[in-house]
Amino acid sequence: MMQNTKDIAMLLAINHMAGSPSEGAVSPMTTEGLSALKDCYMKEYESYKCKNLKLDMSRGKPGPDQLVLSAPMLDVLSSQSDLAASDGTDCRNYGCLDGIPDAKQLMGSLLGLPAENMIVGGNSSLNMMYDTIARAMLHGVYGSPKPWCRLEKIKFLCPVPGYDRHFAICQHFGIEMVCVPMNEDGPDMDLVERLVREDDSIKGIWCVPKFSNPSGLTYSDEVVRRFANLSPKAPDFRIFWDDAYFVHELTEEKVPLLNLFLEAKKNGKEDMVFVFCSTSKISYPGSGLAAMGASFHNIQNIKMQMTVQTIGNDKMNQLRHVRFFRDKEGVLAHMKKHAQLIRPKFQLVEQILERELGFCGIADWSNPKGGYFISLNTQPGCAKRVISLCREAGVAMTPAGATYPYGMDPSDSNIRIAPTYPTLEELKPAAEIFCLCIKIATIEKMIAQASGQKTAPQKAYAIAQ
Amino acid sequence: MMQNTKDIAMLLAINHMAGSPSEGAVSPMTTEGLSALKDCYMKEYESYKCKNLKLDMSRGKPGPDQLVLSAPMLDVLSSQSDLAASDGTDCRNYGCLDGIPDAKQLMGSLLGLPAENMIVGGNSSLNMMYDTIARAMLHGVYGSPKPWCRLEKIKFLCPVPGYDRHFAICQHFGIEMVCVPMNEDGPDMDLVERLVREDDSIKGIWCVPKFSNPSGLTYSDEVVRRFANLSPKAPDFRIFWDDAYFVHELTEEKVPLLNLFLEAKKNGKEDMVFVFCSTSKISYPGSGLAAMGASFHNIQNIKMQMTVQTIGNDKMNQLRHVRFFRDKEGVLAHMKKHAQLIRPKFQLVEQILERELGFCGIADWSNPKGGYFISLNTQPGCAKRVISLCREAGVAMTPAGATYPYGMDPSDSNIRIAPTYPTLEELKPAAEIFCLCIKIATIEKMIAQASGQKTAPQKAYAIAQ
Repeated sequence: MMQNTKDIAMLLAINHMAGSPSEGAVSPMTTEGLSALKDCYMKEYESYKCKNLKLDMSRGKPGPDQLVLSAPMLDVLSSQSDLAASDGTDCRNYGCLDGIPDAKQLMGSLLGLPAENMIVGGNSSLNMMYDTIARAMLHGVYGSPKPWCRLEKIKFLCPVPGYDRHFAICQHFGIEMVCVPMNEDGPDMDLVERLVREDDSIKGIWCVPKFSNPSGLTYSDEVVRRFANLSPKAPDFRIFWDDAYFVHELTEEKVPLLNLFLEAKKNGKEDMVFVFCSTSKISYPGSGLAAMGASFHNIQNIKMQMTVQTIGNDKMNQLRHVRFFRDKEGVLAHMKKHAQLIRPKFQLVEQILERELGFCGIADWSNPKGGYFISLNTQPGCAKRVISLCREAGVAMTPAGATYPYGMDPSDSNIRIAPTYPTLEELKPAAEIFCLCIKIATIEKMIAQASGQKTAPQKAYAIAQ
Repeated sequence: MMQNTKDIAMLLAINHMAGSPSEGAVSPMTTEGLSALKDCYMKEYESYKCKNLKLDMSRGKPGPDQLVLSAPMLDVLSSQSDLAASDGTDCRNYGCLDGIPDAKQLMGSLLGLPAENMIVGGNSSLNMMYDTIARAMLHGVYGSPKPWCRLEKIKFLCPVPGYDRHFAICQHFGIEMVCVPMNEDGPDMDLVERLVREDDSIKGIWCVPKFSNPSGLTYSDEVVRRFANLSPKAPDFRIFWDDAYFVHELTEEKVPLLNLFLEAKKNGKEDMVFVFCSTSKISYPGSGLAAMGASFHNIQNIKMQMTVQTIGNDKMNQLRHVRFFRDKEGVLAHMKKHAQLIRPKFQLVEQILERELGFCGIADWSNPKGGYFISLNTQPGCAKRVISLCREAGVAMTPAGATYPYGMDPSDSNIRIAPTYPTLEELKPAAEIFCLCIKIATIEKMIAQASGQKTAPQKAYAIAQ
């Protein structure tokens, strides 16, 4: 739906630049015409700037209203409570390296894994992933010929766009990242299969298989089956299956994800799989439970190393979660309440995107069925400028490039929108300013093109072929 | 106080073996005499064995009565609570990598360090120590020329007897351990000073400076000052100051420990110091707060690495501790309650040791003023046998050798007694059986010596000279 004369001019300009002038007697867009159009948008932008707004769509964190949902969890353990796990373990005292049985059962049931294949950690699945790689660097994983840090070079495959904190771990440990494009049904599996088969320096791949960060898409059964049957050259290749949004549906529609671990087990390849999850966006981000699932051999190997690291994670918090959620059904019921709170936020942002940008085709974006993000692509070369314009107008966004390894988006176009933390009242102007900034950045690019300027080349950066 | 004829015979035997026959007309002890004596003790031992006891003096863990002291901590955060830290941080949500200011303040006040020099971790100081070394291995510490794992060889000094879990971390990372004998006032500092000055492969030293594990002794001011003024050849040498028992007095007598960090700062050497502590034996072992203190440079360096590892530790548990204990005085008052519960346990064990062994000088032991352990030395070559006899009689003890690197006590004599977990009713027979096993093992050794047998040599193992 077109809003005003500026937007009509925008549409004409785009059509003109695309070589398909709109019908009617409108003069072709010159550099001057584009500049005039930009001036119009800039006036609107300046009026927003005057408001000294402080808005934030950068962080994938639950809003305060969501946190209230878990308040009763704080009452389940009191000075009057029985503080023993179901096996009699005193949760107050030392012990229980891999978590109380009740917590392993609960987290396993959410992932579709037996409790014996689970390790319950502290409050951060990121920390469990980091630790898993740190251990691999220093000692290798089960089946490693040698510790990864003793090898000349190691690489991880990184489906892009992806999660910046996965990439940060690789960068921190000097692991070379090889980008793999995402298709609609998951990573390009032809490429993944070939790369891991041919290159034994490839030791892992990062996956957010359901409501992927940031694209929101979920891997198809076919893609999961192909993961489950990979034949990597490296004997110690691992799939880091970060199932961060495993129960994070936004709508009533349950989005299925095939169970990678069980599929891999059918092929006798379950040692290849590390599954991670947490309750950070179920109970509390600051005080949830993280967990990982793995094969018997992997679990043995990890526990052997963990005995040196700790005497055990926080069992009281494990007990608190188990007593509060009880079982998988308890968690799913709780997640419906989250969805009720954040669905309107996604809808509002999507409506504004559609209203402001839908008419002109200068951006496309996801309409996810779950997870925490909307992924938007601007015209090539515009994302950084959009983020910078937003920042100046008081709207914090995830930095452009963050969804790519080394913070470098080769087409400078992907932007991750996180609509959950702000209120609806804050989201409306934030999304509107964001759309305005996209329009401005796009026109600036059109002006540069019309005047024959070359846009600054992106730093060389290769997507695997 | 002598108990019975067996013990009189024991005393005579010892005096005879020592070449100073007791006065009076007792025939010198022959191998046969000793065997007869052993038979007497074995009868007593067998009668204990028949009882199928299950007693445990192996674990330095608080008893259930101690855990009850912290029950009210479970009521301070409820669904009705304000869950913001003093700076407004929402403890339920993401963020606050190094801990909420209130928790840094509390833990810092216990260590005598400014809050800005503190990082509050998860529930395990062992984990913080492990992580500190893991980071050093992979990236070095502040000032490291290169990551420790890139060096041909690295070594840690280990005052002995010491804490097995420190040694396990070294062993896990392939760090060679060099033993340093403990004197009454701390490690042999002449040796420590010389070794670190001469050998740049020495990157660290483990210290439990107060109520040391297991000896119970506390480093003198002089020793702390010499630590604070070490001049190590390695630019990235670190003192791992595990102040595990920093407020764990057993009696009303406050045992002072000089503040290493502040002393080192006077010498401009504060970068050399990592201090660790936790509330594991203050609140709950399974759900306490761990913390570390370090210099500005070290804190910056660690936080930079931590940003890759996690978004932050459990802030709700930090808030729970702060609201419950309030301040240092609150913690100290709480510790007096712990002392009231465990002091009688130490006293009972010490009384039984004195009664059963005091007369004959076949063992010596500590009478600690704080901490969690009594350290006992048998005659050389007897500790393993004592532990094995105890186990057969249903009394679990820390394995002999555990207080030495690689589990190897060169004189096979040190035994760590942990009296806190059992009840007084359980402790009595446990300590009596333990003493009986010492007598038996000692006589067995005397028999072997009398009959000219050589005792099995200990595996070669060097204490630094």
